[in-house]
Amino acid sequence: MRVLQAELTWWQGSLARDLLLGVTADGRFEALEALRPDDTLQRLPGQLLLPGLVNAHSHAFQRVLRGRTEYAATGPGQDDFWSWRELMYRAAERLEPDTLHTVSRQAFVEMARAGITSVGEFHYVHHDPEGRPYADRLELSRAVIEAAREVGLRIHLLRVAYARSGFEVAQNPRQRRFIDPRPEDVLADVTALQGAYAGDPLVQVGLAPHSVRAVPREWLATFAQAQASLSAVHMHVSEQPAEIDACLRETGLRPVELLAELGLLTPRFTAVHGIHLSKAEVQLLGEAKANVCACPTTEANLGDGVIPADQLLAAGAEVCLGSDSQARIDLLEEARRLEEHLRLIRQQRAVLDAGGGKVEGLAARLLHAATAAGSRALGEDVGATGVPADGFTVDLHHPSLRGFNEASLLPTVIFGAPREAIREVWVAGRRIVEQGRHPIEVQAADAFDAVVNRLFG
Amino acid sequence: MRVLQAELTWWQGSLARDLLLGVTADGRFEALEALRPDDTLQRLPGQLLLPGLVNAHSHAFQRVLRGRTEYAATGPGQDDFWSWRELMYRAAERLEPDTLHTVSRQAFVEMARAGITSVGEFHYVHHDPEGRPYADRLELSRAVIEAAREVGLRIHLLRVAYARSGFEVAQNPRQRRFIDPRPEDVLADVTALQGAYAGDPLVQVGLAPHSVRAVPREWLATFAQAQASLSAVHMHVSEQPAEIDACLRETGLRPVELLAELGLLTPRFTAVHGIHLSKAEVQLLGEAKANVCACPTTEANLGDGVIPADQLLAAGAEVCLGSDSQARIDLLEEARRLEEHLRLIRQQRAVLDAGGGKVEGLAARLLHAATAAGSRALGEDVGATGVPADGFTVDLHHPSLRGFNEASLLPTVIFGAPREAIREVWVAGRRIVEQGRHPIEVQAADAFDAVVNRLFG
Repeated sequence: MRVLQAELTWWQGSLARDLLLGVTADGRFEALEALRPDDTLQRLPGQLLLPGLVNAHSHAFQRVLRGRTEYAATGPGQDDFWSWRELMYRAAERLEPDTLHTVSRQAFVEMARAGITSVGEFHYVHHDPEGRPYADRLELSRAVIEAAREVGLRIHLLRVAYARSGFEVAQNPRQRRFIDPRPEDVLADVTALQGAYAGDPLVQVGLAPHSVRAVPREWLATFAQAQASLSAVHMHVSEQPAEIDACLRETGLRPVELLAELGLLTPRFTAVHGIHLSKAEVQLLGEAKANVCACPTTEANLGDGVIPADQLLAAGAEVCLGSDSQARIDLLEEARRLEEHLRLIRQQRAVLDAGGGKVEGLAARLLHAATAAGSRALGEDVGATGVPADGFTVDLHHPSLRGFNEASLLPTVIFGAPREAIREVWVAGRRIVEQGRHPIEVQAADAFDAVVNRLFG
Repeated sequence: MRVLQAELTWWQGSLARDLLLGVTADGRFEALEALRPDDTLQRLPGQLLLPGLVNAHSHAFQRVLRGRTEYAATGPGQDDFWSWRELMYRAAERLEPDTLHTVSRQAFVEMARAGITSVGEFHYVHHDPEGRPYADRLELSRAVIEAAREVGLRIHLLRVAYARSGFEVAQNPRQRRFIDPRPEDVLADVTALQGAYAGDPLVQVGLAPHSVRAVPREWLATFAQAQASLSAVHMHVSEQPAEIDACLRETGLRPVELLAELGLLTPRFTAVHGIHLSKAEVQLLGEAKANVCACPTTEANLGDGVIPADQLLAAGAEVCLGSDSQARIDLLEEARRLEEHLRLIRQQRAVLDAGGGKVEGLAARLLHAATAAGSRALGEDVGATGVPADGFTVDLHHPSLRGFNEASLLPTVIFGAPREAIREVWVAGRRIVEQGRHPIEVQAADAFDAVVNRLFG
């Protein structure tokens, strides 16, 4: 058996020194008492081994927007989420299967280099630029999944359902590639994709009703019926006040109230964002033990607001993290900003501390959000099936981490480590990043440059 | 003459390709039309050369706190700026000249690696642990200045004046190392330090009345008299609501109103933080063309709140940036978060855009905050004396930057570049970081580890 031995390992909620971690044939980690004669040992001196980061909400193709939307598109003081969305649609309009693959692969390489081992890809571009299904209806989904496979990431493709532009909103022609006529078409695609990748343990397929604005009540009811066969259901929820007003006008209910009434709130449901929530909605998400996915760098970039993660956790919900728009790809930054954004608006510190002055409480909770909580949101029942051999290491000699002791190490990593401190990354026991580099990173980036220059100038 | 030629250079507000930048004998950059026979050319292919980042507000020694204050020290839901401050005082109590030097040097090495070429060090630990002046009154100031010299940074030491614990507040014994009996002692130290470093163009010395809580009106009046001889006056202003209430009780004025009445608001005055400002205070700072130094990562870490930089800029103030508590040391992150924190609370995008849809407006404004605005706050009159040969390069082939065009490059760097994309750093024409590494980084970090372990376990 291959055995990893880092100087320090975060294992079952605490730090262990010189822990022997065997990699099983089915790609899981197993703590060992001692080496056995046939074991091959890989020592990782000067490194801290952490569980792989789970990026529970990604739109990989939005990587092409980085740096291209940071101006007032609609005039000074008028730019917001909705004007950004029009810029984003311009990018979505031009991608074809090959270019979507190239662009997604670049985002996935950057994820791997950031210690991300698993991605929930909220995938909503399905049809050709005229809105007609491709000959193979699944072609764009496959392009994204194959990009993740090439990089070596675990992927949970969340096939998006999109019915309309919104309640009492004229159809936006820029959304035609997202839209299907019937919810049954969406479910059939999910089933077909599940079948196509049934043999790959690194690929799962779930469902993502886009949002209450894009998916009407009747569609949601159909999906609620189908949810027993789905590994995960993700949905954008309450990212912007305007969508809540529209939902109230259409249904008389706030978005989370509507989802609760339809029976969609379960531990396999993930509300992405969940910013503008009433107290009652926080309670509903908590009582259902649902997941809420925070995407702090995107929520800051888009001016969405701050997720009340403290209230959600107190109510019983799980909170996980996503890189969303790829403005940056750094899940440790998402973790620290989950807490830091709350500090800004609450004007307190240690908001998400588990309480009681336990030094490692807060950092461990943020690491949990960046790892196990994400796995749960992606339908991976970590406890039941053993610990996947997904992990990454941090260079303990990096200048930014110096001066730590064992109590302060995890907080130093979560609050202070830049991307460059990340050294090695494994997915299902296979090393995909070595000394900070992914083997295809240059090739992937050159191809990405060529596509972006051709399509967007 | 030594000549640098990067693939792209940000020069006088726009991008230039293959610009020839001569380094003059007195350490300034000069754009050249063509190479001359005796010039030695250093090409920087695949790199973007940017002006050096100016860290206008630093407490270098607080680097020892990184990762050590991220828990609820005073119980769940009770932790805030003031409880953090007690933890910080515990660190300040234990440093002696040699250990302060070692700790400061580590922070300065991390700054250099982050592209920072100039630091405003707000230095407030002056006396021995019993509160008695050292035999050489300037010993701790010298320790900090020498650390910056060793690293090669430009430093503006802002010698802090500290009179008391606060208005109607019992003396806190943890502050005894900061306190002087008379304002004249402080001014004498400033003059002595100016004299001691008069021969080093990389060292300046200014004054920093700590805050309205620590410095009473009479001291401030004395400093206002002396300000013509000072290169810069910095002060913590309105970081926390409690200090505003106390100032109103003591003087009947809000902090900025008090400073205006005393004549302290000038273009050489910098209000550090400036978060909880009335509209009238924003106007006062603007009319005086004063500087406001935002420290977004620290303001998030400490739960301070968000600086109204949009209102301050509109009123005529300059806004610069600082790493403050060293929770992280990444001035590009400070720049992007200046804008992003505003987006979170205003729920808009492109808040600080210069307006009019000019693509590079916002990023150029944030770069200005991270460079020229900081120089101005540190009393460096860049326009009058030429452009210092302070700069850093970014690797254009870094995965995080790929896909840029010339319009999107600066926004991509400001909003998307991690620290590791920074390659070379020059101060006054001397290269202090080469291929991302500082020559003394290992030695400095080992010494830092030893000090931190000995003093703080």
